[in-house]
Amino acid sequence: MPVIVQKYSGSSLSTIDKMKKVAEAVVNKKEEGNKVVVVVSAMNNTTDRLINLAKKISDEPDKRELDVLLSTGEMASASLLAMTIKEMGCDAVSYTAYQIGMRTVGDYGNSLIADLDDRAINRSLRKDKVVIIAGFQGINWLGDITTLGRGGSDTTAVAIAVKLNAICEIYTYADGIYDIDPREYKYARKLEEIDYEEVIELTSLGAQLLHLRAIELAQKYKIPIHVRLSFSDVKGTVIKEVNTMNMESKPITGIATSDEDVAVTIKDIYSDINIISNLFEALASKKINVDMISQTAPIDGRVNVSFTIPKENIETCLNIIDDFAERENVYVDKDIDKFSVVGIGMKSTSGVAARMFKLFSDNGIEVKMITTSQIRITCAIKQSDKQKAVDLVIKNFRHQ
Amino acid sequence: MPVIVQKYSGSSLSTIDKMKKVAEAVVNKKEEGNKVVVVVSAMNNTTDRLINLAKKISDEPDKRELDVLLSTGEMASASLLAMTIKEMGCDAVSYTAYQIGMRTVGDYGNSLIADLDDRAINRSLRKDKVVIIAGFQGINWLGDITTLGRGGSDTTAVAIAVKLNAICEIYTYADGIYDIDPREYKYARKLEEIDYEEVIELTSLGAQLLHLRAIELAQKYKIPIHVRLSFSDVKGTVIKEVNTMNMESKPITGIATSDEDVAVTIKDIYSDINIISNLFEALASKKINVDMISQTAPIDGRVNVSFTIPKENIETCLNIIDDFAERENVYVDKDIDKFSVVGIGMKSTSGVAARMFKLFSDNGIEVKMITTSQIRITCAIKQSDKQKAVDLVIKNFRHQ
Repeated sequence: MPVIVQKYSGSSLSTIDKMKKVAEAVVNKKEEGNKVVVVVSAMNNTTDRLINLAKKISDEPDKRELDVLLSTGEMASASLLAMTIKEMGCDAVSYTAYQIGMRTVGDYGNSLIADLDDRAINRSLRKDKVVIIAGFQGINWLGDITTLGRGGSDTTAVAIAVKLNAICEIYTYADGIYDIDPREYKYARKLEEIDYEEVIELTSLGAQLLHLRAIELAQKYKIPIHVRLSFSDVKGTVIKEVNTMNMESKPITGIATSDEDVAVTIKDIYSDINIISNLFEALASKKINVDMISQTAPIDGRVNVSFTIPKENIETCLNIIDDFAERENVYVDKDIDKFSVVGIGMKSTSGVAARMFKLFSDNGIEVKMITTSQIRITCAIKQSDKQKAVDLVIKNFRHQ
Repeated sequence: MPVIVQKYSGSSLSTIDKMKKVAEAVVNKKEEGNKVVVVVSAMNNTTDRLINLAKKISDEPDKRELDVLLSTGEMASASLLAMTIKEMGCDAVSYTAYQIGMRTVGDYGNSLIADLDDRAINRSLRKDKVVIIAGFQGINWLGDITTLGRGGSDTTAVAIAVKLNAICEIYTYADGIYDIDPREYKYARKLEEIDYEEVIELTSLGAQLLHLRAIELAQKYKIPIHVRLSFSDVKGTVIKEVNTMNMESKPITGIATSDEDVAVTIKDIYSDINIISNLFEALASKKINVDMISQTAPIDGRVNVSFTIPKENIETCLNIIDDFAERENVYVDKDIDKFSVVGIGMKSTSGVAARMFKLFSDNGIEVKMITTSQIRITCAIKQSDKQKAVDLVIKNFRHQ
């Protein structure tokens, strides 16, 4: 009998009424002849409510104790969902992290799953029970409660699916993953499948899809993740290892754009790796997230360096730069849209970047900066060109 | 260095501001040179809020899952108090039931403490940390979370004090135990000490002092409990084994009254122990709590039986009696006050009951029913006589 691990997010469990709908979906899945394990997040707003309580005590609450506090949110929703399923006449049992030996390593608030003990889960599945697991939490070698970081319940679900060699379904407010944000672009198209690498790139670009570590874990153990809409039977998107040999006609899987950054250029800085690395270290020490970086080849021992940073960090950034360069040599470009295309198909399709730049150039789109990875091309363009760029890429690169 | 186990109730922890006051008191106690273990209840209203959530799912939520849900309340307050103490610069650590191996037996929702493992607590005390324990919860042999019943955190505190051979302080909204309810009687006097048995009797009479099992546990291991006011240094009342040899001049420790009951009398019922026990069984099956029972000696094979029951059960009770007697033989007296005096001194002072009845008789107080235990006399009197009875007993029996 197939084992299915389902994960429900806090928005799907925010009220008892929604919880009843989740319970119905779970019971249906079981009655179709599956063994079902459900991983739950805290009910919406619970985690924020708990964090606010802790913030009343301290701006930086003790991390060990904060994890104890936060873990109660998932315990509560797990027990409530188990009650709801039992009330429907279907046997169910909830487990906390320590009850399934969900061992973690690393920091409080951002711990990593080391292993888990699936004996209790299997025992309950054999007894025909639905098993409900409090997500997001683990126990470290000291026996302390730890949490996996925001969104960590996704990773709990994948870890359990790995251990049970089960099908993994992540239910959320979206019905799948689209090639471009469907809230902004009507012609956005839902993807049937997407490669782990592509989701990792898109997530790094700011798309809020899944907990990044969930995808990395699924990739490591080759467990497909089915991302789908809560309370619905519609097929969503399967994240899996995609065979790139079949992908030549579809080099681009998804597009992500962001207007949250500005570009900073420093002219005529000494071409000394120490100076430049000191600059980026100084920015990092203020937690400024530097993204695209490009540097021109040196002329007379001097180079131009450009990089993008989040808008809100510009003042802090300029103050830091004052230690490295004269203000008159520093240029800030606020008219920046980071335009990224991601596709595992690029690995086997050469010249995608060249084709895209030619397309932009033919259509009068100025490309200000460029960075690439093996499966991603990001360029900074004018914000007014964003729509045109999206249209062109969809028209020319999307598999029809 | 003395070890002190302090227990704080939900009303002392209901806001972060109150929690800060508790934290200050704890830190002071530690700086006076004590090792301090603190047992906490859930923040006020948390338990009710959680129960209400569960009641939205079912009138009778699954008991195992309800215990998981309720246990989160104490986890949250334990972690928040530990954070607060750490924020004040004093090291602290919270523990849940499973982290201190608080093993329980018996039913979910009303489990009994079997044992606990004090190693983690002692390790932290040796490291000079304040130890905060989530009260009210345990782990049974299945590894399931159980709760100890309402007020169970008192019992957690006593169990830990027993294990650590520590001083036990229960902080509450009252500054101690009084010989009569101080909210009703101005001349109520706080007791310096009171015997375990006396507290057990007073609690059974409806005084809401402590979790009954906490007192029984303390009595078994002869651990004194100091009941005292939160956020105050005022000495409260110590519950301990009182030497009755010194008590001859003080036969009565406390007075309790209740107007919540009515008296039912059945005339001329057959003097057959089967009939009478069937009657009381039928009442018990409807969860009617029968208290005072008295039966006259049989005349011509028939007896009169009187008993008191809670007011609100009278209709149910009369319906049950219909199976045993004619309505015309059943009398209901609603003008009943249950007046009880409790005192361990009665064991060594003979004639207390006789002296009291003489006092009542001399002053025109009609005694309708009487029941006694070794350390308690309860009589049913008219409600209008209650104040007079209290005055007389205080004047004639209280140690001046």
